[in-house]
Amino acid sequence: MFSSSPPSEKVPTPTAPPGSVDVENDDSQTQTPLPPPPGYGVTGIMRRWRHEDVLKRGSLAFRALVFLFSLLSFIIMATNSHGSGRNFDEYEEFRYVLAIAILSLLYTGLQSWRQIHEMSTGKQIISGRNLALIDFFGDQIIAYLLLSAASSAVPMTNRMREGADNIFTDALAASISMEFFAFFILGLSAMLSGYKLVKQTYI
Amino acid sequence: MFSSSPPSEKVPTPTAPPGSVDVENDDSQTQTPLPPPPGYGVTGIMRRWRHEDVLKRGSLAFRALVFLFSLLSFIIMATNSHGSGRNFDEYEEFRYVLAIAILSLLYTGLQSWRQIHEMSTGKQIISGRNLALIDFFGDQIIAYLLLSAASSAVPMTNRMREGADNIFTDALAASISMEFFAFFILGLSAMLSGYKLVKQTYI
Repeated sequence: MFSSSPPSEKVPTPTAPPGSVDVENDDSQTQTPLPPPPGYGVTGIMRRWRHEDVLKRGSLAFRALVFLFSLLSFIIMATNSHGSGRNFDEYEEFRYVLAIAILSLLYTGLQSWRQIHEMSTGKQIISGRNLALIDFFGDQIIAYLLLSAASSAVPMTNRMREGADNIFTDALAASISMEFFAFFILGLSAMLSGYKLVKQTYI
Repeated sequence: MFSSSPPSEKVPTPTAPPGSVDVENDDSQTQTPLPPPPGYGVTGIMRRWRHEDVLKRGSLAFRALVFLFSLLSFIIMATNSHGSGRNFDEYEEFRYVLAIAILSLLYTGLQSWRQIHEMSTGKQIISGRNLALIDFFGDQIIAYLLLSAASSAVPMTNRMREGADNIFTDALAASISMEFFAFFILGLSAMLSGYKLVKQTYI
């Protein structure tokens, strides 16, 4: 289903000017030449193309946001060393936060790179079914890990802030919050990927 | 691409013996001259009923298991008081574990009761669309909470077990493990509910 759209998309565009958006070019072509009925099937397919396009862009936007929040969490935690007893790497929960931030960075970075590459070149690196599986399970597992890491670091931070509120605890709180934001958005992305997976498999 | 492969797979197997798999039975039906057509629509509907039945039973089994593990986690944590410094309610993470275990107990208990009630009487308490939404979001949110609570309690337990390994820390570890099991199973249940939601909405 998925791979059959690019060839049929290419067919009607030999006379098209090198315009900006594909969908609009397609529209003007189907409107102008044919006085007979505009073809319900064609509009249905085009509406579906546009729907898939929105899904793709939404998925890319979600992952780019997660990349941003993971990067912030990583930077804030990695630079959080202020002398003995106030280094993040003396506590396993803060090392866990850092590790999961790096993992999330790698995952969302690779996925965003792949999506941008596919959008610009139009070539698919991974085929449809496997891609949907990787998308869904990748998003869901990284979301679980982000939540787990952020949750594990909260009690110790609370305990430290009861004693003294300084730059160390503030940076901890900031890093943990960024990781929670990343979790929320990646959870939404996982729902989107799951929707695409079920819809594709049982179309 | 994907939907075109099953038919081409069916073509080379018309002389196959009546095997155990459904697909092959289907094949032999279409191949034989079939004077009395056994009603393809009826078998299709019946297969779908059976499929839905399996989904329902699987969903009930998952939730009953989560109920069991939450109950264990709740009992082990609630009885875990062994004198000053060794009471679970002196630490916020262990109170969080207890609170989420109770929440999960309530949710899975109510859902299991509803499912058993519907199976025995055949009446639906909540209508289809709303039910699928409640199922999916309920499962997913409770799964996230279970993971969050279990994760938050792990670092403090580790730290205590470095000092001394006694009945208090053992009970903590047991309760946290039960909550992790509950999370795993409820995560699977959430995937099942999500599948049912997408399939039902866009059938």
